[in-house]
Amino acid sequence: MTTLSPEPPGSAPERTAVLTDHDSLLAFLTGVFAHRGLPPHRAAASARALCHGDLTGMDSHGTANLTRLYLPLLDEGRADPRAEPRIVTDLGAAVLVDARRALGLWAATEAMDLAADRAEAGGIGMVAVRGATHLGCAGYHALRAAERGMVGLVASNCGGQRIARPPGGAAALLGTNPLSAAAPAGDHPPFLLDMSTTAAPTGRIRQAAREGRPVPEGLLCDDRGGPVTDPAEFDAGRAHLMWLGGEPGRYKGFGLGLLVEVLSALVSGSGRGPAPQALAGDGSPAGRDDDIGYLMLAVAPDALRGGVREDAEELFGTVLGCPPVDPADPVRYPGWHEYHRARRCREHGVPLAAGLYRELADVAERTGLAAPAILEEGR
Amino acid sequence: MTTLSPEPPGSAPERTAVLTDHDSLLAFLTGVFAHRGLPPHRAAASARALCHGDLTGMDSHGTANLTRLYLPLLDEGRADPRAEPRIVTDLGAAVLVDARRALGLWAATEAMDLAADRAEAGGIGMVAVRGATHLGCAGYHALRAAERGMVGLVASNCGGQRIARPPGGAAALLGTNPLSAAAPAGDHPPFLLDMSTTAAPTGRIRQAAREGRPVPEGLLCDDRGGPVTDPAEFDAGRAHLMWLGGEPGRYKGFGLGLLVEVLSALVSGSGRGPAPQALAGDGSPAGRDDDIGYLMLAVAPDALRGGVREDAEELFGTVLGCPPVDPADPVRYPGWHEYHRARRCREHGVPLAAGLYRELADVAERTGLAAPAILEEGR
Repeated sequence: MTTLSPEPPGSAPERTAVLTDHDSLLAFLTGVFAHRGLPPHRAAASARALCHGDLTGMDSHGTANLTRLYLPLLDEGRADPRAEPRIVTDLGAAVLVDARRALGLWAATEAMDLAADRAEAGGIGMVAVRGATHLGCAGYHALRAAERGMVGLVASNCGGQRIARPPGGAAALLGTNPLSAAAPAGDHPPFLLDMSTTAAPTGRIRQAAREGRPVPEGLLCDDRGGPVTDPAEFDAGRAHLMWLGGEPGRYKGFGLGLLVEVLSALVSGSGRGPAPQALAGDGSPAGRDDDIGYLMLAVAPDALRGGVREDAEELFGTVLGCPPVDPADPVRYPGWHEYHRARRCREHGVPLAAGLYRELADVAERTGLAAPAILEEGR
Repeated sequence: MTTLSPEPPGSAPERTAVLTDHDSLLAFLTGVFAHRGLPPHRAAASARALCHGDLTGMDSHGTANLTRLYLPLLDEGRADPRAEPRIVTDLGAAVLVDARRALGLWAATEAMDLAADRAEAGGIGMVAVRGATHLGCAGYHALRAAERGMVGLVASNCGGQRIARPPGGAAALLGTNPLSAAAPAGDHPPFLLDMSTTAAPTGRIRQAAREGRPVPEGLLCDDRGGPVTDPAEFDAGRAHLMWLGGEPGRYKGFGLGLLVEVLSALVSGSGRGPAPQALAGDGSPAGRDDDIGYLMLAVAPDALRGGVREDAEELFGTVLGCPPVDPADPVRYPGWHEYHRARRCREHGVPLAAGLYRELADVAERTGLAAPAILEEGR
């Protein structure tokens, strides 16, 4: 999952070359998923979840993953477009679901909606999911709870995929294990935190490697913990993803990564990174992101007390009102930039890299669908 | 709250000078709290919670806080030894409690126990608490759920106390907002993460200042974000606590700090750091840690599925079995060192700094109690 971008709103579009119409991009994505066998409602829900990455500037988790991740999952049968998730245990406030390889973009949405339904009545709702596939941006699903006035929490592991090493360890044991949280903020944009528990997601490292530019210190280290800035060293197996917190705080980041594994995989019984086969290899990242686990949690403060909306607006309004060190750079909270960027994109077009647009046009041609409409080229 | 210590188990006792008997230290602390008006059960529960800091090496949150924090709270009437917490709303899985200024060391324990009771029946239990006082080590309370085979999560804000600035902001808005999680690990020591969402807790900075030694880069910064290593600059107002994640990841740490504020204070309706009066000052840390909010969450995986204990043991056993980079430094997970250190302390004595022991002896003399028995001096 990608890290929250503290970049100013305008920075992402500058790297792009094609501005596509939002409705037409959604219609195209919906068509592609329907072509692969998803029922219409699921196809539309999956398209919206995927597009969230492009709208909010989390490019590594947006439409770029259509041909890299979701179509291969469906084409190889690792995701089942018509799978009917099954409720294994239903205790009211807590539910265990086996997603049976349904497409995660849709199944995660359904799971959070169910958690929020239960929270509406009982103040809290938890849906643990196993047998799942990649959910896209965790934040998209957390936001669904916030849009209903609730606090949403999403934890997802990476199934049996192992990417990051424990501190002092010579074998990869955990995925980038994303954690996301969203909360309403009254009339202000919702709070939205969407982060990998590693210092960076793999997508950010690989993008830098493709572009041939170094990454800042604090994201990668060598076997002995020394800093690495050449991103190509990561896939060569000579550099490893660091945990959030860098060297002084790595036990916190590692602990958060383990917490996500516990919440998403131990509670649900899904595949796990730290499994015996992890210690049989040569220490390189390995395992596949099959049988992913999620935990979707919704908390409904309105069910417990009055005045929540006003208090939320005051809390986040105070953050926005904080005097800035640099008057040109006002104080914002996670989710503020993403909300405004998404609104701009819906109104004025979604920027896509030229190469990505060509990929989508190829998919359109092969599936007999209309490619997303271009509003402006060569930006 | 203090950061999880990645130090090898033997390092903390070397700085200390008095080894006290564990049972006698507990009896002394129980006596002091009873002397201040706490009913016997509460006094004993508070003593155990406070002593957890000394047992696990989180010295800044242990007995050192008796005279610095808890006795003043009681003596000034900011904590009420006999307050009866009141259930404001009870929805079964979710409960809202007004602690009415009961001593947090005890009230937090009760709140987590209630959350675990509810989770036993329904798979999940949440107790939101307002009107609370300082809970000591958040991890002590999270661990109570783990000891019942559950996942425990604790979030606490610092009431209206403001210590840390948002990224780019010139006014302190949030406390160090601790987050703790614990989970069972089969026959292995329970997983226990107990962390401030700032890069370090204030106690660690002030301890370094008292000892006249610099702090590592990554904990403090100046107004413009430049690194500060002189800890005295913090209380002088010229250095500010950084967020977990340092410069590259500060939006994640800030986001986690806000998440803790939302979970603990927005859900419960307690005092909050980001309140209008925060913007009326000169930007210095301010506000008092009255009307603290907690969120206690217990998840009972056994209520949802079988095999949890075995899976937990395999998960954490795999981490312990990870080949280490340095054969002399085996891989461990948060909570492992703390568990073993606590066991050693219970059997062989609790190390206390000589100055701290003198403080406790003074309290003993003034209250007519026996001072904790010394097993060994001048270590």
